[in-house]
Amino acid sequence: MSQFSHLNGNEGVQMVDITEKTPTVRTAVAQSVVFLGSDAFRALINDEVAKGDVLTSAQLAGIMGAKETGRLIPLCHPILINSVNLSFSLDEEAFSVTIKATVNTHANTGVEMEALTAVSVASLTIYDMCKSISKAIRITNIKLISKEGGVHGSYSVSHPHKQPRG
Amino acid sequence: MSQFSHLNGNEGVQMVDITEKTPTVRTAVAQSVVFLGSDAFRALINDEVAKGDVLTSAQLAGIMGAKETGRLIPLCHPILINSVNLSFSLDEEAFSVTIKATVNTHANTGVEMEALTAVSVASLTIYDMCKSISKAIRITNIKLISKEGGVHGSYSVSHPHKQPRG
Amino acid sequence: MSQFSHLNGNEGVQMVDITEKTPTVRTAVAQSVVFLGSDAFRALINDEVAKGDVLTSAQLAGIMGAKETGRLIPLCHPILINSVNLSFSLDEEAFSVTIKATVNTHANTGVEMEALTAVSVASLTIYDMCKSISKAIRITNIKLISKEGGVHGSYSVSHPHKQPRG
Amino acid sequence: MSQFSHLNGNEGVQMVDITEKTPTVRTAVAQSVVFLGSDAFRALINDEVAKGDVLTSAQLAGIMGAKETGRLIPLCHPILINSVNLSFSLDEEAFSVTIKATVNTHANTGVEMEALTAVSVASLTIYDMCKSISKAIRITNIKLISKEGGVHGSYSVSHPHKQPRG
Amino acid sequence: MSQFSHLNGNEGVQMVDITEKTPTVRTAVAQSVVFLGSDAFRALINDEVAKGDVLTSAQLAGIMGAKETGRLIPLCHPILINSVNLSFSLDEEAFSVTIKATVNTHANTGVEMEALTAVSVASLTIYDMCKSISKAIRITNIKLISKEGGVHGSYSVSHPHKQPRG
Amino acid sequence: MSQFSHLNGNEGVQMVDITEKTPTVRTAVAQSVVFLGSDAFRALINDEVAKGDVLTSAQLAGIMGAKETGRLIPLCHPILINSVNLSFSLDEEAFSVTIKATVNTHANTGVEMEALTAVSVASLTIYDMCKSISKAIRITNIKLISKEGGVHGSYSVSHPHKQPRG
Repeated sequence: MSQFSHLNGNEGVQMVDITEKTPTVRTAVAQSVVFLGSDAFRALINDEVAKGDVLTSAQLAGIMGAKETGRLIPLCHPILINSVNLSFSLDEEAFSVTIKATVNTHANTGVEMEALTAVSVASLTIYDMCKSISKAIRITNIKLISKEGGVHGSYSVSHPHKQPRG
Repeated sequence: MSQFSHLNGNEGVQMVDITEKTPTVRTAVAQSVVFLGSDAFRALINDEVAKGDVLTSAQLAGIMGAKETGRLIPLCHPILINSVNLSFSLDEEAFSVTIKATVNTHANTGVEMEALTAVSVASLTIYDMCKSISKAIRITNIKLISKEGGVHGSYSVSHPHKQPRG
Repeated sequence: MSQFSHLNGNEGVQMVDITEKTPTVRTAVAQSVVFLGSDAFRALINDEVAKGDVLTSAQLAGIMGAKETGRLIPLCHPILINSVNLSFSLDEEAFSVTIKATVNTHANTGVEMEALTAVSVASLTIYDMCKSISKAIRITNIKLISKEGGVHGSYSVSHPHKQPRG
Repeated sequence: MSQFSHLNGNEGVQMVDITEKTPTVRTAVAQSVVFLGSDAFRALINDEVAKGDVLTSAQLAGIMGAKETGRLIPLCHPILINSVNLSFSLDEEAFSVTIKATVNTHANTGVEMEALTAVSVASLTIYDMCKSISKAIRITNIKLISKEGGVHGSYSVSHPHKQPRG
Repeated sequence: MSQFSHLNGNEGVQMVDITEKTPTVRTAVAQSVVFLGSDAFRALINDEVAKGDVLTSAQLAGIMGAKETGRLIPLCHPILINSVNLSFSLDEEAFSVTIKATVNTHANTGVEMEALTAVSVASLTIYDMCKSISKAIRITNIKLISKEGGVHGSYSVSHPHKQPRG
Repeated sequence: MSQFSHLNGNEGVQMVDITEKTPTVRTAVAQSVVFLGSDAFRALINDEVAKGDVLTSAQLAGIMGAKETGRLIPLCHPILINSVNLSFSLDEEAFSVTIKATVNTHANTGVEMEALTAVSVASLTIYDMCKSISKAIRITNIKLISKEGGVHGSYSVSHPHKQPRG
């Protein structure tokens, strides 16, 4: 059997069978960082209304994106998400927005792809809404922060602050 | 008027009116980098069949993702894409895959969001197919490389090799 | 905590966590009224084939619309619907069609949004199919009729015949 | 030929052929009214943050809903929308929110269904976000306000203030 | 260059660039045959209401399916369909339903995949609605009947009655 | 009650209520045959890379298509698929590709429509990728091979090799 759970030797790609797995409460937390650059970042923080609109749009897009995960990622299982929560923190020195998404479910497979898709779509939405100010925005450091409830136990990035900056 | 073209002062968010813009041939090129780490990267390059399956899956997911852009990003205009092309280069020292997407259209708005969505969904697909080997995969450096055909002229990252590593 | 379950104080919008809620059999019934006006209404009832086609199209669109609820309404949970049923009654005096949708599920959240979306999409479909005859069609009085099976007990409009006409 | 443009006598339903129609700039404006009742209405206007979040969510959902029109309404043509704009006005006496959507395109068919779908989905989103406070919310008076640019000339509701209340 | 227009040698799959192609009016006609077997076929023709409901459902599903083509078939271009028309003929000797779909557009690529998707989804819908009566239903002979308006000229099945029965 | 489980006498179409059915592990296997003709078939088998790309694309499209079943087929219940697996066998004498799809779930309704949709979408994808070589490709013999786990017991095509060739 292949190390790649979605691959089946010479049989090609497959959606792996999760019938035998037990449904449990599962959580995944993912993160991304959007480097806006100084112009777009300052425009954002200097306009309270704009900031609210951009971040609320990104929140909603991320939540709706999480619900689309099983349709965007070919081999992902469709999952009934129990909750999605996105939060933002602004770094005035790096001119960046860090997005954190937490996804919960009760299912027989995990939700890390849902959390990663949530931060990706939220990041693209911020990019889209700020691109009239700068074309040099970069989305970086999309990664899993932690994961709980699966049969393989919990996973957590040990020293996230030591990760190389995006 | 707001600097943010999607925002309308106290009126909130809007899809900006592109009726007056002239349809032209437009191209956008975007990139992303997926850091697999040594285990997943070596598993990939040591198994020619797996490598083909993973990269073809990412290519298809990226192409299909580009077609979903107007549905994922709340304020994006729906666009008829004329072509999407994704290519991959593997960096054996950084244990990374760099994805480049080129999108063409004939429309009155650009396709940078389509190119960025293509590389994002392709990156998430690689992540999904390699996550049984490593949970520390990171997707970084999602950015626009170049853009042609719009009313504001062309845009190109000047020294992309000098960009900070994702 | 906010009175608005989808809002999280200064944290913005969220999909509320339903992990702790117990899955139960749940039903919701919703209604809408489409005022066609005399021309479109008479055209409809005088042509048995047209009437059948319009109402069957509205039924199917309402059923399919119910299945899309979680994708249309940003903060709705995705739900596996167990059944959807739409019925129509024609009022020859008001030149109107009343649509009733009943949705069932076994889930840890209710299906009122699914029932309301079903009648809304069915109403829009009737509008679309009759709009070549009249542009003054109005869709009104979209509301919940009853709801059963949730943790807060049942809900039922007490005197629906006393409700103001849409 | 049937008076119902989508019906084809005994041949059933069809998407009508618009090949011979000339593409023109077209606009449609539609409206809906959401009666929240006093509790939900007061909760909304007394919490500036909540009000912003609810209305921004409804705006985004309406914009995204407009883009889904061709997929929700079975016989609608797919259309490339050039802009969507939703605005809200709050009536403190009726405890209601009036939603107005304006949609533009350059196409060979009109966008009234897109405008009507936008206000419907925005209304359902407000309902969803306020339903924890009241179950007696009603969505009413969904109708076309005006339409311009089609081959049949313009249409406008003559005395909208004389329309019966939803 | 590969004989397969969607393949790019060792570069993998791509959506081919149609930017240089001229938009023209294009039509495609496709067909499928659903063998119901005697039980399901007789149940269908002996119940006028059921027959109407099944065929109208299949018509609507085929029309809506045609609009989904660009999302279902990975390398298809998104296309604005100008019309879709499905008709049915029942063969009482073969216990079969023949479905014919005609799709029109004005675009720089053809609509054969849209017509083929329309008959496929309509066939699956008939299958679904009759499967409680028989599990031996077969869908066969899905093929292109004719194609007009492309740069390669017209195509038409020469002697369709001589084609082997599905 | 109608023999057609989705029909409700004069009440029209409905999604049947599966609330009372017990969730069980369920499997369905479906098949289709794509007759490519000699030119397209030989082009495929003589180009190992092309063959891999076409079959992998069809596999992914079939898997993603299976996940779309509840949205394409109007009266299908949405289902959480536990696995999808597609395999291909090439017949050098008939110049055909036989596709087999196996779908698993744990649900209170079966997955035959999911398996049939998987082979249909995979077949259409092969058609699309080979249509530049031949316009006479035919998709045939889409049928259920076996079904297990439902309340009516198992079903299996008794002598599949005696079935008429598509």
